[in-house]
Amino acid sequence: MNYLTLDKAEKAKLLEAEKARMAEYAAKGLKLDMSRGKPSKEQLDLSSDLYMQLDPASGFNGKQDYRNYGLNDGIPEIKKLFADLAGVAEDEIIVAYNASLNLMYDSVQRAMQFGVSGEAPWNAQGKIKWICPVPGYDRHFSVTELFGIEMINVPMLSDGPDMDMVEELIKDPSVKGMWNVPKYSNPTGTVYSDAVVERLAKMKPAAKDFRLMWDNAYMVHALYGQEEQANIMDLAKKYGNEDMVYGFGSTSKITFAGAGVSFMYSSAKNIAEIKKFMNIQSIGPDKLSQLAHYRFLKSVDGIYELMEKHAALLRPKFEAVDEILERELGGTGIAKWTKPTGGYFISVDLSEGTAKRTVELAKQMGVVFTGAGATYPYKRDPKDSNLRIAPSMPPISELVEATAIFATAAKIAYLEK
Amino acid sequence: MNYLTLDKAEKAKLLEAEKARMAEYAAKGLKLDMSRGKPSKEQLDLSSDLYMQLDPASGFNGKQDYRNYGLNDGIPEIKKLFADLAGVAEDEIIVAYNASLNLMYDSVQRAMQFGVSGEAPWNAQGKIKWICPVPGYDRHFSVTELFGIEMINVPMLSDGPDMDMVEELIKDPSVKGMWNVPKYSNPTGTVYSDAVVERLAKMKPAAKDFRLMWDNAYMVHALYGQEEQANIMDLAKKYGNEDMVYGFGSTSKITFAGAGVSFMYSSAKNIAEIKKFMNIQSIGPDKLSQLAHYRFLKSVDGIYELMEKHAALLRPKFEAVDEILERELGGTGIAKWTKPTGGYFISVDLSEGTAKRTVELAKQMGVVFTGAGATYPYKRDPKDSNLRIAPSMPPISELVEATAIFATAAKIAYLEK
Repeated sequence: MNYLTLDKAEKAKLLEAEKARMAEYAAKGLKLDMSRGKPSKEQLDLSSDLYMQLDPASGFNGKQDYRNYGLNDGIPEIKKLFADLAGVAEDEIIVAYNASLNLMYDSVQRAMQFGVSGEAPWNAQGKIKWICPVPGYDRHFSVTELFGIEMINVPMLSDGPDMDMVEELIKDPSVKGMWNVPKYSNPTGTVYSDAVVERLAKMKPAAKDFRLMWDNAYMVHALYGQEEQANIMDLAKKYGNEDMVYGFGSTSKITFAGAGVSFMYSSAKNIAEIKKFMNIQSIGPDKLSQLAHYRFLKSVDGIYELMEKHAALLRPKFEAVDEILERELGGTGIAKWTKPTGGYFISVDLSEGTAKRTVELAKQMGVVFTGAGATYPYKRDPKDSNLRIAPSMPPISELVEATAIFATAAKIAYLEK
Repeated sequence: MNYLTLDKAEKAKLLEAEKARMAEYAAKGLKLDMSRGKPSKEQLDLSSDLYMQLDPASGFNGKQDYRNYGLNDGIPEIKKLFADLAGVAEDEIIVAYNASLNLMYDSVQRAMQFGVSGEAPWNAQGKIKWICPVPGYDRHFSVTELFGIEMINVPMLSDGPDMDMVEELIKDPSVKGMWNVPKYSNPTGTVYSDAVVERLAKMKPAAKDFRLMWDNAYMVHALYGQEEQANIMDLAKKYGNEDMVYGFGSTSKITFAGAGVSFMYSSAKNIAEIKKFMNIQSIGPDKLSQLAHYRFLKSVDGIYELMEKHAALLRPKFEAVDEILERELGGTGIAKWTKPTGGYFISVDLSEGTAKRTVELAKQMGVVFTGAGATYPYKRDPKDSNLRIAPSMPPISELVEATAIFATAAKIAYLEK
């Protein structure tokens, strides 16, 4: 039923029905949480043996005794593994502690305080601006907001960010960076097309110290088999642009969200420069976590195999949410949602001005969704339309119920208006 | 034999004898490293079972599934343990990743960029100065140097830093902080007396945003049984000064130097403020390393027991170095050295202007010592006198030889002059 063409009376009748449904849900006293892209227990169990790789009988030695100080940029074995995964050389990568977000924060912090590529510190360059494809990842936006960087929204299209707009924006020398989740983007699931990757790789921003933040958080997180994507570093090198790219990744959603290993990749020149800072900042990352990860994952193929097991657990959940959305909201005209082939989220665009109210109503029915606006810089969705569904954590029965509640909330929010 | 009262001929004769000794050592082709305070293999072996605490059969649950996201300030079990150890409350501590140096770096970075206690960012306050007890820890000095903070030397006396000088310096509002290793200080082994701790705790610096960096790196690293020391936080609270103190510690030299757990403690107000930043900076620390540490260490008593085992391994090494120094340099008048009751270093003051040359000569005999000057800000020892010996890593036979070589080098450096 197309809600957009209903007359007043029809709307009133539907609203009454949905409110009755809401009362039923509310009476159940549910407590469901669909707000965060957390892996489920079953997914975490896939890597439960990880630390058994550190049995004393296996020893702790590689290039040195990894229980001791040294090797601030990570142990060579895992540097090689992640370099292979990211398609870079071993002098183009640093393997660090568990949180890649921290590597991104540090990159912005260093640029603010010390500058990059011999340019003045961003702190000393007046207003700094940043390109933010939207909807996007709230924690990216929080970092740039903290440093007082002005964020500019650029729409995420089906093949990546609106490149015409990006190419226009980078003519402004105060535009210093851009957030990207190039594969299975958070929250839209967008896979940047090779053409978009190439347009980004060959950009010549007015700011020499522009940095393309390439958060490859979901690089191997496919639901229906691994998908190829043009390698940003290869293309950047082709255009003499490799210093512009800061790549990031982690095993947070490969092994453990609460105890993974993260890495950063860039040009050899950048990595050497960053290592100088890291040698002052820290005595080095946890090398035993790295050793355990290396022994557990073994190779890029080992990672693919593990990701296939994750996919087997995640696929039915994504499909269940899609099925309920289709059943409840299909053809209504008040909701469009993504059908991602990887990543952790389904992004829903509701009728303008109804997202906040939908979250509010769902909460009254016992289901917590990510706050409306969270997917936009400054938590301001100009259309109050986008919401993010995270299907990974709850069991399917809960997902089905929570999604139905979501639909009811979205309908009421629309019909009330 | 007192070298200071020798005449020219006697000196020449001795120099010849020591040079002959040097030639013998050099001919051996030794390759010894006494430069870094690294634990030995035997010490690391004490904690080899640490990760076996993460056997899947034991589960990964405490307050939640620690394999998943959440708890950015550490798991409650280990927060409690380290709070007990540091003598603070659980809302006065954050337990983080492995490197406490990183927590110190972050503290300085945040103060520079964002300010502390509602004061203007240090970046916006012109020249920032810092009190550095000397000799001290090179990595502390590197952090403040990186941020362009002007470091002021204050002599380390037998009971702690020269407090008369400190109390004078803090009248300058541009003096914003002070490095401290209050127990078994690096490298002198000094234990700040309770009187010094109290004088520090009750300071009223002109700068409201002054921070007392309390790097309690060796808080339990006693060689001859645990020694009491007045608690800085208790005393700071007594004087309404608890916001001034930033305490730090880690298990780097309790469990693994390359895979420990670090923590930071301060007033509840400061910790709450810092957590807000950390929630933006990171998705949280490695919680499984924390869980393994908690299960392995169990309690403060568990930590003490483990430290007694470390002491049993370290004591003979410290005593061997002291014995050789006494035999070779005792009564010469050209060297004074510390006899620490804990920590990782012996600090040697040589005759003025001979430290650099001593390191050079030792290197020619195949032994690497920490570079002269490393224990001073900007790597500038104004007297070219202080050197640091790190006895923990080499086996005793090597220590004996390396220390004898050190003595030969020191003698030649003096006699040459």
